[in-house]
Amino acid sequence: MISVTLVGSGNVAHHLAQALDLAPEVQFDLWVARNPKAVDLKVNTIVSDGLGDAIKSQIVILAISDDAIAEFSASMSPSDTLLVHTSGSVNLHDMDKKHSRGVFYPLQTLSKKRSVDFSTIPICIEALERKDLDLLQSLAQSLGCSSKIISSEQRLALHLAAVFVNNFSNQMYRIAHEITDSERLDFDLLKPLILETAAKVQYLSPFQAQTGPALRKDRKTIKRHLKQLANENHRLIYEILTKSIQQTHGK
Amino acid sequence: MISVTLVGSGNVAHHLAQALDLAPEVQFDLWVARNPKAVDLKVNTIVSDGLGDAIKSQIVILAISDDAIAEFSASMSPSDTLLVHTSGSVNLHDMDKKHSRGVFYPLQTLSKKRSVDFSTIPICIEALERKDLDLLQSLAQSLGCSSKIISSEQRLALHLAAVFVNNFSNQMYRIAHEITDSERLDFDLLKPLILETAAKVQYLSPFQAQTGPALRKDRKTIKRHLKQLANENHRLIYEILTKSIQQTHGK
Repeated sequence: MISVTLVGSGNVAHHLAQALDLAPEVQFDLWVARNPKAVDLKVNTIVSDGLGDAIKSQIVILAISDDAIAEFSASMSPSDTLLVHTSGSVNLHDMDKKHSRGVFYPLQTLSKKRSVDFSTIPICIEALERKDLDLLQSLAQSLGCSSKIISSEQRLALHLAAVFVNNFSNQMYRIAHEITDSERLDFDLLKPLILETAAKVQYLSPFQAQTGPALRKDRKTIKRHLKQLANENHRLIYEILTKSIQQTHGK
Repeated sequence: MISVTLVGSGNVAHHLAQALDLAPEVQFDLWVARNPKAVDLKVNTIVSDGLGDAIKSQIVILAISDDAIAEFSASMSPSDTLLVHTSGSVNLHDMDKKHSRGVFYPLQTLSKKRSVDFSTIPICIEALERKDLDLLQSLAQSLGCSSKIISSEQRLALHLAAVFVNNFSNQMYRIAHEITDSERLDFDLLKPLILETAAKVQYLSPFQAQTGPALRKDRKTIKRHLKQLANENHRLIYEILTKSIQQTHGK
């Protein structure tokens, strides 16, 4: 049994609370939310607006905004607990050194409105001592998740890579949406293609999965596409990404 | 019952042959492949290297390369058949006008190595006469697919939009792969995020689904990310897409 206190009420906290509540080998001691009454998730634990003085959990998870982590950790009294944050971009050492410190970063885009199978999320863990790593590994396992030891520097790289696959891919979808709108076409037509593009790289590398006019160096189609694009920024993005694909594939 | 002849042996032809073969209401008359011996798919039809003189099918589908469509259609004798191509970017009128002409464009990325559920693919259809549109609609239905009447001009816009969601998203995955490689991180860690990013816009619009430092105008993180990127082109792509997200969201 691993005892856990969770701090925060944002998107990550919401999904973590749900997973902690469901895990049979986790004792969910306390959920700290700035405004307990605003918590709209039913869980089998006490929801409070403060940590209190005596922390009894083995792990305290800070699922709060990046900017609040250092200050919150400084405000806590020292204890035997392992203090971890869930951020992709905050260094472990930004937390006050009076605590045993670690990181428990679920690498997924989480929003309250959308339920995800928590067990599919890889957890990036970090800690200063072997026993703390073991404890975080056990916690991930209790939630049904795989975990990987990732240094703070590596985590920064992962966070950057995540911007490309998540925010920037999503912007590709957005530009496509603007194109379909401009021709009074239903964006829904592209949805199976969007899903398959993501599904393909679960088995093939992105290098192997690439297709299209840039890869084929199909100048006629590329020229026509550029002419079709009324938006100057979209034209620039098309040119730069076409060039990027051709560089990747040595063309 | 709809009778069909298929011409071609590439990726689209391969998947179409499989779907035609399985559809109970389709009579798959003939499969024309340049090299019948190289066809490595078992189907319940004759595989031949030529169309022959007497075309008996109601529909002949040209699933051949874009550049070959005009010439192939010109080389065919006129008949009562409806001649359609499967290309996203070839105009209906590029086919010889001695034929009844149409388009049957499956909007999906297809490769022989990867099986897809054909029934999830939207088919973009086009024809000059109502009865031909009805016939193509029935064919799509027989394959379990939804279909939509799309003009040649709209089809060009869809093809362009597909480059953004498919080729360019895939290049985002590729750049992420280069970033994880450079830190000796496993690209697999990003796979659930890639899938979820695509799954999210099946329910939310890309506008609603956007998150991240560009949207939040989080200058500190953006600056650090740019510093992290060793590759000058990746830096340029990061800057331009960050700007694009901020323009989309009026920031």
